[in-house]
Amino acid sequence: MNYKVDTQIFFKSLQKSICAALEAEDGLGKFEIHEWKRLGGGGGITAVLQDGAVIEKGGVNFSSVEGVLPAVVAKALRVESTHFFATGLSIVIHPNNPHVPIIHMNVRYFETSTNGRSEEQWFGGGIDLTPHYVDKEQAKFFHQHLKNTCDARGKEMYPEFKKLADEYFYIKHRDETRGVGGIFFDRMYASQKYNLHNRFEFIKSLGNSFAPIYTHLMSVNKNKSYTPEEKNWQLIRRGRYVEFNLVYDKGTKFGLDTDGRIESILMSLPKMASWPYDPQFEEGSKEKETLSLLKKGIDWLK
Amino acid sequence: MNYKVDTQIFFKSLQKSICAALEAEDGLGKFEIHEWKRLGGGGGITAVLQDGAVIEKGGVNFSSVEGVLPAVVAKALRVESTHFFATGLSIVIHPNNPHVPIIHMNVRYFETSTNGRSEEQWFGGGIDLTPHYVDKEQAKFFHQHLKNTCDARGKEMYPEFKKLADEYFYIKHRDETRGVGGIFFDRMYASQKYNLHNRFEFIKSLGNSFAPIYTHLMSVNKNKSYTPEEKNWQLIRRGRYVEFNLVYDKGTKFGLDTDGRIESILMSLPKMASWPYDPQFEEGSKEKETLSLLKKGIDWLK
Repeated sequence: MNYKVDTQIFFKSLQKSICAALEAEDGLGKFEIHEWKRLGGGGGITAVLQDGAVIEKGGVNFSSVEGVLPAVVAKALRVESTHFFATGLSIVIHPNNPHVPIIHMNVRYFETSTNGRSEEQWFGGGIDLTPHYVDKEQAKFFHQHLKNTCDARGKEMYPEFKKLADEYFYIKHRDETRGVGGIFFDRMYASQKYNLHNRFEFIKSLGNSFAPIYTHLMSVNKNKSYTPEEKNWQLIRRGRYVEFNLVYDKGTKFGLDTDGRIESILMSLPKMASWPYDPQFEEGSKEKETLSLLKKGIDWLK
Repeated sequence: MNYKVDTQIFFKSLQKSICAALEAEDGLGKFEIHEWKRLGGGGGITAVLQDGAVIEKGGVNFSSVEGVLPAVVAKALRVESTHFFATGLSIVIHPNNPHVPIIHMNVRYFETSTNGRSEEQWFGGGIDLTPHYVDKEQAKFFHQHLKNTCDARGKEMYPEFKKLADEYFYIKHRDETRGVGGIFFDRMYASQKYNLHNRFEFIKSLGNSFAPIYTHLMSVNKNKSYTPEEKNWQLIRRGRYVEFNLVYDKGTKFGLDTDGRIESILMSLPKMASWPYDPQFEEGSKEKETLSLLKKGIDWLK
C-alpha cells in the first residue's frame, strides 16, 4: 500500500462528497474551487462557499505539500528528518444563523524522510464543535457520533481523544474552551495494536461521518429565528475563534511556517467578527450559561 | 532620580491629557475608566472610548506591573534577571470613518532585577500609522513630525528608528507592512552618548506629540464621505491589524505571557473586522494603490 497516493485519493474524494452534501443542505451557496501550487513542492485545492443560505463562509480544503522541512517546523515536530510530505483535508464552516454551530475538522497523513528514505509516518487530526449558544442535546448528539466512530476501532480511543481535544481546543488567555470540544489525535503512528492500515480506516470512518453530522446540525437549527443581540453574541464568539486560530492553532502555524497559500490557511477566519470592549452579560442569560459551559472535562454524554 | 516613580507620574499624566484631547476632537464619545490589579503585582488604568462620533473603539492604557519574570519572557528579552518592573502607556485608536487612519503608540520604561538589585533599565516604544487608504501627504505629515521629535535629540535617531519600524510593523505571511510605519525603538539603554535622563526626555517629547498629530489627522478626515465599498475595505484592513497583533505583536505576547488583564491587552482589536475569502481589487483602484504602498523602505518625506 502506498499511503502517499491512497491518502490523497481518499482526501480528494472526501472533499467532493462533503462539498456536495453541504451545498445540498445549504440550498443556495456553491463552492468555488481554486487550485494552487506551492513554490517548495505540492499544492492544494481550496473549496470555499460564501454567502450561502445557511453558510456565511465555509472552506473545505485539500492540500498535499512536500519538500524541505523548515527548521522551526522540525523542532516543533521533534523530528530530525530533513524532508516532509503532508496531505489532508481541513474544514471550517461559519454559518449565518447564530443557532447553527461552527464546525471544524482536520484529517491528515504525514511522512518525514531524509535522503529519500522514509523515516516516520503518521495520521493525525481532530474535529470540534463551537456552538455560539451551547445546546446540551446537540453537544451530546455530536459526541455520541464521535464515540461510535472511535468505539468501532478501539474502546480506549474516545476517552483519550476527547481529553486531548479539551486540552487542545482551549483559549488559555481567556480560560475558555473554544466550544464543546470533540476529539483530537495529533500523531497516530503504527503501534503494536494498530497498524497504519487500521489508522487509515479510522481516518476514513471519521471523514465519512462529517457530512451526516453537520448537515443534521444545519438542518435542525437553520430555520430558527434570532435577534440582533444573538447576532452580536455570534460575532463576539467568532472573535474568540480568531484568537484561537491566530494565537494557538498548530495547523495555522504550520501553514504560515511552510509558506502555504495564505487565503487557504486563513479561510478558517469568519467573514465578520467583533471585539467590543469588555462586554457584560446578565446572570442567568443564555450568554452567561454558554460561558459557564466552555470548560474542560465536561462529559457531554451524560 | 527615581525612574520607577517619575515614569509612572509622567505616563499617568500623559494618559489624562491624551484622553482629554481625543474627547475634545471626537465631540461625542467619553472615555470609560477601569482600574485593575494584577495578581502577581501592579496593575493599570484602562481608558476606552467606544461609539464616539469619530472614534469607534480607542484605548489609552496605562499599566505598571512588576513581579517574578516568567521564564518565557526572560528568554525572549535575553536577560537573566528574576524580577521585572514595567510601566507604560499603550494607545490604539480605530476610527469609524475609513478616511481617518488607525494609530498606535506605545511608550514604556522597563527594569529587571535579581534579589532587589536593579540590573537593567531601559526605555522602549514606538508609534505607527495605519491608514485604510494611504494618503501620501498625510504620511509625510506624520513622518515629518516624528523626524522633528527625533532630530531634537539626535540626528541619527529618525533614520534608525524608522527602519526598525519598517521591520517591526510587518505582516510576514502577507508580505505587507501594517501601514505607513513610523518609529520603533525596542530597548534604549543609557549609552556613552545618551544617559537615561536624555532617553526619558525623548519619551516625553514623543508622548506629548501624540495628541497634536492625531487630532490633526482626525480633524482633516473626519467629515469626508465614504461608500459601503470603502467601509468594507476598512473592515478588511482591520482584519490585517488583528493578524498582526495576535501573530506578531510583542506587547500583546508580553501581556498574555505575564497574565495581564485580557480586555486591556486586547483593546487593540477593532470592534468589527472582516475576512472575506480572497478579495480581489481592480488594477488602478485605490485599494490596489494602497496595497502597493504597504512596503518597507519607502521614504515618506520625499
